[in-house]
Amino acid sequence: MGENLVLTNVRPMGGDPTSVTFANGRIAGFGQAGSDGAETLDGGGGILIPGLVEAHTHLDKTLLGMPWYHNDVGPRLMDKIENERAQKRLLGIDPARQSERQALLSSSLGSTHIRSHVDVDTDLGLAGIEGVLATREKLRDVVDIEVVAFPQSGMLIRPGTVALMEEAMKLGAQVVGGLDPSAIDRDPKGHLDVIFDLAERYGRPVDIHLHETAELGAFSVELIVERTKALGMQGHVTISHAFCLGMPDQDYVAALIEALAEARIHILTTAPAFKAVPPVKRLMEAGVVVGAGSDGVRDTWGPYGNADMLERAVLVGLRNNFRRDDEVAMALETCTSGGARMMERESYGLEVGCNADLVLLDGETLAEAVVSRRPRKLVIKSGKVVARDGRSIMAAP
Amino acid sequence: MGENLVLTNVRPMGGDPTSVTFANGRIAGFGQAGSDGAETLDGGGGILIPGLVEAHTHLDKTLLGMPWYHNDVGPRLMDKIENERAQKRLLGIDPARQSERQALLSSSLGSTHIRSHVDVDTDLGLAGIEGVLATREKLRDVVDIEVVAFPQSGMLIRPGTVALMEEAMKLGAQVVGGLDPSAIDRDPKGHLDVIFDLAERYGRPVDIHLHETAELGAFSVELIVERTKALGMQGHVTISHAFCLGMPDQDYVAALIEALAEARIHILTTAPAFKAVPPVKRLMEAGVVVGAGSDGVRDTWGPYGNADMLERAVLVGLRNNFRRDDEVAMALETCTSGGARMMERESYGLEVGCNADLVLLDGETLAEAVVSRRPRKLVIKSGKVVARDGRSIMAAP
Repeated sequence: MGENLVLTNVRPMGGDPTSVTFANGRIAGFGQAGSDGAETLDGGGGILIPGLVEAHTHLDKTLLGMPWYHNDVGPRLMDKIENERAQKRLLGIDPARQSERQALLSSSLGSTHIRSHVDVDTDLGLAGIEGVLATREKLRDVVDIEVVAFPQSGMLIRPGTVALMEEAMKLGAQVVGGLDPSAIDRDPKGHLDVIFDLAERYGRPVDIHLHETAELGAFSVELIVERTKALGMQGHVTISHAFCLGMPDQDYVAALIEALAEARIHILTTAPAFKAVPPVKRLMEAGVVVGAGSDGVRDTWGPYGNADMLERAVLVGLRNNFRRDDEVAMALETCTSGGARMMERESYGLEVGCNADLVLLDGETLAEAVVSRRPRKLVIKSGKVVARDGRSIMAAP
Repeated sequence: MGENLVLTNVRPMGGDPTSVTFANGRIAGFGQAGSDGAETLDGGGGILIPGLVEAHTHLDKTLLGMPWYHNDVGPRLMDKIENERAQKRLLGIDPARQSERQALLSSSLGSTHIRSHVDVDTDLGLAGIEGVLATREKLRDVVDIEVVAFPQSGMLIRPGTVALMEEAMKLGAQVVGGLDPSAIDRDPKGHLDVIFDLAERYGRPVDIHLHETAELGAFSVELIVERTKALGMQGHVTISHAFCLGMPDQDYVAALIEALAEARIHILTTAPAFKAVPPVKRLMEAGVVVGAGSDGVRDTWGPYGNADMLERAVLVGLRNNFRRDDEVAMALETCTSGGARMMERESYGLEVGCNADLVLLDGETLAEAVVSRRPRKLVIKSGKVVARDGRSIMAAP
């Protein structure tokens, strides 16, 4: 693929057919002829959207390409955490190899950006961070990977983990992760003090896994809002899962949503069907950025994830009872621009001058393309084709 | 395809490889050579399961193969019901053509049995019933279709509907349908009296759409249990949706489950993500038969349904937080034998003597095959191949 490309006969967001030209990895124009020597590709009337954004996954521990893992794990969160730590050694889950497998699968399915939480713990140390950073570098022309240092096994409850979190930031992790300040770490003030201190000293955003439900989770949200405002970190903090925003007390939820909007804290949902979940439409209408992600993809936690962000849009739609075409578009937004805003990718989008990170979908209308989830016709990263008809240009390990 | 067939190198339910012979439309044996002149097919190590069962859908009103319907319908149940009645004429939704399209899609995806609710109302009369009965006859060698006479627009609230329901039974509908005795028909006793009277006089089972939530739905469940026992209809009554079984009052739910098990009333779930739902594991452990279905497939109600009962098993699993392999098998059971028991198909299964209604899946293990949902390698109905590699042997209209 050359530096310059013209893609003819495409329908941006399902609108009228046009052509799009790329130059130097960016969108140079719509409806124009390409420069001399530009390669021309026929888009076949496909629907052009900005790249899908996988804004919450765990690249370091997928089992993709490994023998099927027979899951008979216990029901508690800690059962899954402890089982996984043991299986990493027993099964030989190599973070570099596994992250490359999943990232290439994601790319073939149209994701041009991935935020991956990567485990940091005193058993495995920084092996996960090193492995995913290696994949990040190896695939830098194919997919944009952002690494979150994530204390999956707890931080304050496992002495030595805080020092490893700091090492992870020095190694090149781009985001400070956190996890259930009360329910796992048993010290909400202490937990948040540590991760916001790291974020401040390294000038990095924060993304906190918050599984805590109802009033306990709401208390954590309040503490996060307070710190975000006190440190001037508006726009740089994400709360992942945030199940508490699905609690029955609608007045309390309304107050929390208002506080989140004011502090410009983002919400990430995987739209699980079995839990209370953040109300996507209410959050978006209040001005809160909502991203979406696959969470685990075929790992020791569960068998279902498949890294398809169009399928995730369907799951967001099903979970939020989105039936209308405008609502399906809203679900897709969580899997595109919502995630991109969460990841603070300023040059993301379909406008002239934006990075040419795009997906060409096969579909009659935008909603039809989303719900049908056919193989992606083209995936373009920085103006170059990186996948075609559902297949990556690179072979997975 | 001849009357006799040998399928070699298959793994029943993911177990050890064997061969299976069919004769006269039934399973004749495992691990045996075929009779003289029997056709032999290589199963390629695929996983053999009994046919998938689509136990709740609406064949008469899918929009498959028609131009994309731009959905901007209002939020209430009645908005959707009234919009649909209008769109049937405006869009020209032909029940015979549309039911054939969806039934062939279902078959290509491995469904060998379909229970379809078919609208009966005073606008369209029996056109839906006639159309789906025509498809039932046309596709009788491909897929087993059971027709439920379904008063979608209400029954007692729309005078003339009861007479049409009786006409539908005379025409050949196999099941008496009902709908929200209180919330839609405003007369729970009157509604149930009519449909149980029809069921008794025509010797047919009952399948009631029950969207009513919490205590209102629970009251309807109690009335249905009373009538089922009084009329000796144990084993012949299904409650579809039964959202009330997902209500918070767990003691009340436990009492309802016990009553359902005693009256041998079946529960049908589509496992919607946005509503309270029946707890599949608790119901099955109590001995209640649980079937699953797609509900609407790309219709005026919503865009998502795709008739894939492996995907439905995944949605049942996601909704019920089934992560273990034995739980994924339980989710699959709702999409196979659960639906077959609901439909009272006694000769269904993988044993010698059962009808040779089978699907060959591509997969490493049973759970892997379910979550991966690859194109079905073979679909066999009454011992004959009706679909191969995801394609039906018949062309859709």
